[in-house]
Amino acid sequence: MKNFIFQNPTKLVFGKGEIARLPELLPDNVNLMVTLGGGSVTRNGVYDQVKAALGGRRYIEFWGIEPNPRVETLRRAIQLGKENQINYLLAVGGGSVLDGTKLIAAGIAADEDAWDIVLKGVAGDQIPFASVMTVPATGSEMNGAAVITREETKEKYGFGGDYPRFSILDPQVTYSLSEHQIACGLADAYTHVLEQYMTTPGQSRIMDRWAEGVMLSITEIAPKIKDNPLDYDLMADYMLAATLALNDFIRMGITQDWTTHQIGHELTALHGTTHGHSLAIVMPGLLRVLKDQKKAKLLQYGERIFGITAGSDEERADKAIEMTESFYRSLGLTTRLSEEGIGEETIETIASRFNERGVAFGENHNVTGDVAREILESCLLSSGHI
Amino acid sequence: MKNFIFQNPTKLVFGKGEIARLPELLPDNVNLMVTLGGGSVTRNGVYDQVKAALGGRRYIEFWGIEPNPRVETLRRAIQLGKENQINYLLAVGGGSVLDGTKLIAAGIAADEDAWDIVLKGVAGDQIPFASVMTVPATGSEMNGAAVITREETKEKYGFGGDYPRFSILDPQVTYSLSEHQIACGLADAYTHVLEQYMTTPGQSRIMDRWAEGVMLSITEIAPKIKDNPLDYDLMADYMLAATLALNDFIRMGITQDWTTHQIGHELTALHGTTHGHSLAIVMPGLLRVLKDQKKAKLLQYGERIFGITAGSDEERADKAIEMTESFYRSLGLTTRLSEEGIGEETIETIASRFNERGVAFGENHNVTGDVAREILESCLLSSGHI
Repeated sequence: MKNFIFQNPTKLVFGKGEIARLPELLPDNVNLMVTLGGGSVTRNGVYDQVKAALGGRRYIEFWGIEPNPRVETLRRAIQLGKENQINYLLAVGGGSVLDGTKLIAAGIAADEDAWDIVLKGVAGDQIPFASVMTVPATGSEMNGAAVITREETKEKYGFGGDYPRFSILDPQVTYSLSEHQIACGLADAYTHVLEQYMTTPGQSRIMDRWAEGVMLSITEIAPKIKDNPLDYDLMADYMLAATLALNDFIRMGITQDWTTHQIGHELTALHGTTHGHSLAIVMPGLLRVLKDQKKAKLLQYGERIFGITAGSDEERADKAIEMTESFYRSLGLTTRLSEEGIGEETIETIASRFNERGVAFGENHNVTGDVAREILESCLLSSGHI
Repeated sequence: MKNFIFQNPTKLVFGKGEIARLPELLPDNVNLMVTLGGGSVTRNGVYDQVKAALGGRRYIEFWGIEPNPRVETLRRAIQLGKENQINYLLAVGGGSVLDGTKLIAAGIAADEDAWDIVLKGVAGDQIPFASVMTVPATGSEMNGAAVITREETKEKYGFGGDYPRFSILDPQVTYSLSEHQIACGLADAYTHVLEQYMTTPGQSRIMDRWAEGVMLSITEIAPKIKDNPLDYDLMADYMLAATLALNDFIRMGITQDWTTHQIGHELTALHGTTHGHSLAIVMPGLLRVLKDQKKAKLLQYGERIFGITAGSDEERADKAIEMTESFYRSLGLTTRLSEEGIGEETIETIASRFNERGVAFGENHNVTGDVAREILESCLLSSGHI
């Protein structure tokens, strides 16, 4: 096991009706700005619950943080926050609203331009922020990460900083999500786990078991949710899975491989592919290309998640990769670039970007632009050819 | 899943050589008291490492916090702390030193007697405290609980309060532990998990999987540690298992049953039985007596931890209980009261105490003094009769 430092101070407030706790969770005497997306919270009742809970409190609202939040939008929120001496933010929405809010929190506390904060990769000071989370997917409600898009250059990068002071998760808010949103959320959570898990076995027995525990839970609930999207316990399992998939709990003392996210961000920046969907396309390709490097872990994964025990190591590893792609498809997502009308031009753009930046991702720092090209090439063929 | 609130702010600093980080972890300009046990830290080198890390810093030391820390001892530490305007505590030792330190932290901040704080069950204000943990067992390094003994009345109760600001865990410090200490530590950690797990299945898929993940890890490493107590990776798995077994991570939204601890504390208070050992005696008895109530979870547990799939439900539940007792015995611990020379008189004392206090433990609040008597009676026979 590698040395590590773990600290996650977020207060997780989970369950039916918990939005009503807002008054006891928010400090008194702060200048509050509530940050919101495009209006879905007005249709699913969450906005009304938040408004009722905030009662006579004075606050301002910033609306319009879009999916894959854009720095161009967030700059306006930062300006509004500075003009109103805002010193506490409450994000009400999904991972994009909260990710955007994390940058607003940094931008209000800083003198520099918001994109420069993103490019540094690490926020400096941030004013405190919290969330009412409405879309189980990104885990942003209990981690210090955020991903921001710069529309004018079609770039998408992550940065790290403070954790939410608290996050309220009421599984009932998921009842209004579309099938595609749920599919992307499950794919996002599952892939987060794989990216922390699929490196080398034997680094930490418990981290392996916990990652497998989240993946087993997701593969169990996914088909049931399709039939019962209003089942509270299923949606509670889904919502908790998404949080625990990316809140540092399953990556103590182990190596990780975030290549899939790095490539997925490019697909989203260039084509607007929903984040979770982009991961479902890239991950199987990554496993195909890096199969030898990851084989020992693939065998453990195949056995413990899909019960694959028959055949040679090669056959079992292949089967584990196939089952992974099948799982994503079972959610109703495509897993090949051609199915999304994405072709060679995009692959070349991504490979060039990686090569120009001189990056090398993965636990062995060997996924350069050229390896990314190979991964994306293996994602080209339509599923008919799988 | 039940509604829940989770927050664990402790910074966990884990790995080889991490004690050297003390200067960056401790705030400047605090009046520090270092709290210690009976001297084992002087023999295993931990005290020297702490002293070296604290360098030119001024601090005072309080020595002599014993196993099952006594309020009589801790009152002296509280007085010393008050006399020296101490406002930060660093516990260097095992769970007993840290548990005692949690009461010292409350006592220094309060006007009332330390035992009154214990009896209330909840600490009020506490001055900040942190730890260098040397014995993986209690999980005290990352939770808000402490258990204190009052020697004059042979009582032992727990209370809750703040979490350590940070805890440093270097698995190398375990190299000097005795076989019995390791056995009791593994039993303690395993039982902590069982007490959060062995109620009703299906409350949270992930919590079930995570609890099982810790138990599978412990059952895997236990026999290996016997042969290789100086294997860093094994001891790191053991140390992390003990922390994750009782830091709130595996009990989100689920019912729990802490009966075994309540009865175990009585055995320790009356006979000085090592804490982890007391749990190894009580847990199998509890499972025998509450088998019907816990049957569905026993079947899941038997299958997932011990691979028990053959036989009727009754047979599989019995087998799961037998395997649990066998696991404790495999550590080198006895599991029957008669093996420890404990008999009917103690059983009656414990049953009377529970009945007098009017308590009813367990997820169904049905373990009264009379049920505790039944549990302890089932623990009487020597192992030859199992």
